[in-house]
Amino acid sequence: MLTLDNVSRASYVLKNVIRKTGLIHTSRMVPGSEIFLKTENLQITGSFKIRGAYYRISQLTPEEKARGVIACSAGNHAQGVAMGAKKNGIESLICLPDSAPISKVEATKYYGAEVCLVDGVYDDAYRRALQLRDEKGYTFIHPFNDENVIAGQGTIGLELLEQLAHLDAVIIPVGGGGLAAGVAYAIKTLKPEVKVYGVQASGAPSMYESIKKREKIKLERVSTIADGIAVLEPGELTFALCQQYLDDMVTVTDDEISTAILTLIEQQKLIAEGAGAVAVAAAMFHKVPVTGKNVVCLVSGGNIDVTILSRVIKRGLLKSGRSYSLNIELIDKPGQLKGVSQIIADLGGNVISIHHERTSENSDINGCYLRIILETRNFEHIEQIRDALIQAGYKLVL
Amino acid sequence: MLTLDNVSRASYVLKNVIRKTGLIHTSRMVPGSEIFLKTENLQITGSFKIRGAYYRISQLTPEEKARGVIACSAGNHAQGVAMGAKKNGIESLICLPDSAPISKVEATKYYGAEVCLVDGVYDDAYRRALQLRDEKGYTFIHPFNDENVIAGQGTIGLELLEQLAHLDAVIIPVGGGGLAAGVAYAIKTLKPEVKVYGVQASGAPSMYESIKKREKIKLERVSTIADGIAVLEPGELTFALCQQYLDDMVTVTDDEISTAILTLIEQQKLIAEGAGAVAVAAAMFHKVPVTGKNVVCLVSGGNIDVTILSRVIKRGLLKSGRSYSLNIELIDKPGQLKGVSQIIADLGGNVISIHHERTSENSDINGCYLRIILETRNFEHIEQIRDALIQAGYKLVL
Repeated sequence: MLTLDNVSRASYVLKNVIRKTGLIHTSRMVPGSEIFLKTENLQITGSFKIRGAYYRISQLTPEEKARGVIACSAGNHAQGVAMGAKKNGIESLICLPDSAPISKVEATKYYGAEVCLVDGVYDDAYRRALQLRDEKGYTFIHPFNDENVIAGQGTIGLELLEQLAHLDAVIIPVGGGGLAAGVAYAIKTLKPEVKVYGVQASGAPSMYESIKKREKIKLERVSTIADGIAVLEPGELTFALCQQYLDDMVTVTDDEISTAILTLIEQQKLIAEGAGAVAVAAAMFHKVPVTGKNVVCLVSGGNIDVTILSRVIKRGLLKSGRSYSLNIELIDKPGQLKGVSQIIADLGGNVISIHHERTSENSDINGCYLRIILETRNFEHIEQIRDALIQAGYKLVL
Repeated sequence: MLTLDNVSRASYVLKNVIRKTGLIHTSRMVPGSEIFLKTENLQITGSFKIRGAYYRISQLTPEEKARGVIACSAGNHAQGVAMGAKKNGIESLICLPDSAPISKVEATKYYGAEVCLVDGVYDDAYRRALQLRDEKGYTFIHPFNDENVIAGQGTIGLELLEQLAHLDAVIIPVGGGGLAAGVAYAIKTLKPEVKVYGVQASGAPSMYESIKKREKIKLERVSTIADGIAVLEPGELTFALCQQYLDDMVTVTDDEISTAILTLIEQQKLIAEGAGAVAVAAAMFHKVPVTGKNVVCLVSGGNIDVTILSRVIKRGLLKSGRSYSLNIELIDKPGQLKGVSQIIADLGGNVISIHHERTSENSDINGCYLRIILETRNFEHIEQIRDALIQAGYKLVL
């Protein structure tokens, strides 16, 4: 049974190990609400996972410590266990599928773990980890379905109560449910009038569906940019705690998550990963009642691959009118490109790339297509450029 | 004359207005050095400028306050003055060239200023601001060459001495020199054994050149991605203080700045603008002695346009082998594209875009060019893909 005793002990154990992350206040992000961002993306290892991992490892017996720990993860849990083991002075081995991004492998090694790359996908790495546990006597550190792991994550709840006196609601990302279980338990036990909400990605709603159906279900597959919370099935323990202590659960789409990531960058200068941005997305898109309230959004982590970050930004630029792809059907005679370029330059559009294609089945024999990618200021600016081109006789196509 | 009295007064005045920003410790960013990031990018308005602007405005007489303030800036100073005026309960007017990015205009309005868009460039907006000052009796708030502004920025120096007992060196971004003058003055006055370094972009080295030549010089033009410190000429006051209190000045290139921005994103989950990343760049590229020392890098601001951020990331991906542009000369017969695609897919490359061009003067009549942009894992991965294509008989070109 999870007890406040255990969460408090975790707080004490973690005191000089982790960063006590700040709360950043903003009235701008959701007009009409006071939003407080709990910045666990700025936690050491870039996510809250170090809390549960370190505390879990610290409670092992001397014999268990001597044998070392093992985990299977390509993400934040791997880095949490690696760092948690190093700071406890013991050995760790992390099994990863060999398709894992090189940056995650490097980070896991940097934080002090030995890495075992396994042919195949996550499930293969998981099976290998269990096999090595049995062979070598390592302790397997589960990413969420473990009482001490949950107690470690729950320390965030105690911090929030201390950091913000007038707290109305807390919104928490949910994957396997360890974070939500711990934080909800701590807050509801000490201050039950605070609302606690869980958020999942709509492409991976395992806890959401389980709670709605009042039974633990397992999804067949998941698909979301919030890879850190793309979990097929909640744990027994986390499911029971979330069902008891969460006031409600909601989901957010990948587009809503992308918007939240971009808003955190532009307004708060913070990098969040997909999973780290779902609580902000839930607040921005009013998935839970936030108007007139002091609401903590838990920004759980910042370990986003820059390739994905780059895509999120590109999509955000398109969706906010700051980038535009223009397709023009030209008559293939000299001077056409110059004419188009002139109009765009006069209106302050900035050309990123041009693709000029002479042969196409859809245009007549003298025709050609011009595809121009532009940096623009906003939708109004795009309209101006489109209107000017149409007025000058150019034919815009989709 | 700047006095410690004035800096201390500024600290007191700013106490409940601004955020006391944290110091983030990392041993990873520069191996062999303990780096402490002073996160003024997380300051309200996204940069340190609120400190000087608010304090300067707070010291106006009641008559001056009643008439309001004016400033000319497309950047952080605009947002600092806007917020500084609003928090002092007075009116502000910011002159901007009408070519300013819409996001900066919106942010300035959001923080409470009236915006006056002026036809032309920065100099036109500046002249218009002085004209309005004379006509309407507004007080002009200079971005750096002002004793109270410098005292406000200097409060960071006091905070650093309080936050870090064993401080060996501080690295500070320099544009007009207000920040460097204030921080260097405060630190050197109280603890002269701490080394204080200034950093400029190599494309805008006005203070650097002035100090090397021992006279204030004016550049003819500047060119750098660190637009926040692209200043043609230091102020009289800031030049004198920087000359007296800085131990040394160095410069960093745009490539070094880009690398620093990417490193802050990947390792620290922090968004810095170009100017905000120059101190980190100086430490990473050992422009000043950092080995074995406790070094503060002042991350002065995070207001980077996402379009520029997107370019910095793209460049960083290319430079670290995580993106690659492949150019192949094909014989124009069916099945060639399929062959290439197969090899790339087998090796785990991810195709971002393909450009297939049949007519080119450089290839023979049956030839064509294929340009493929790929997501790759690292340089080794790129080599694997290139080798496999060459072995299969494809001709790679530049």
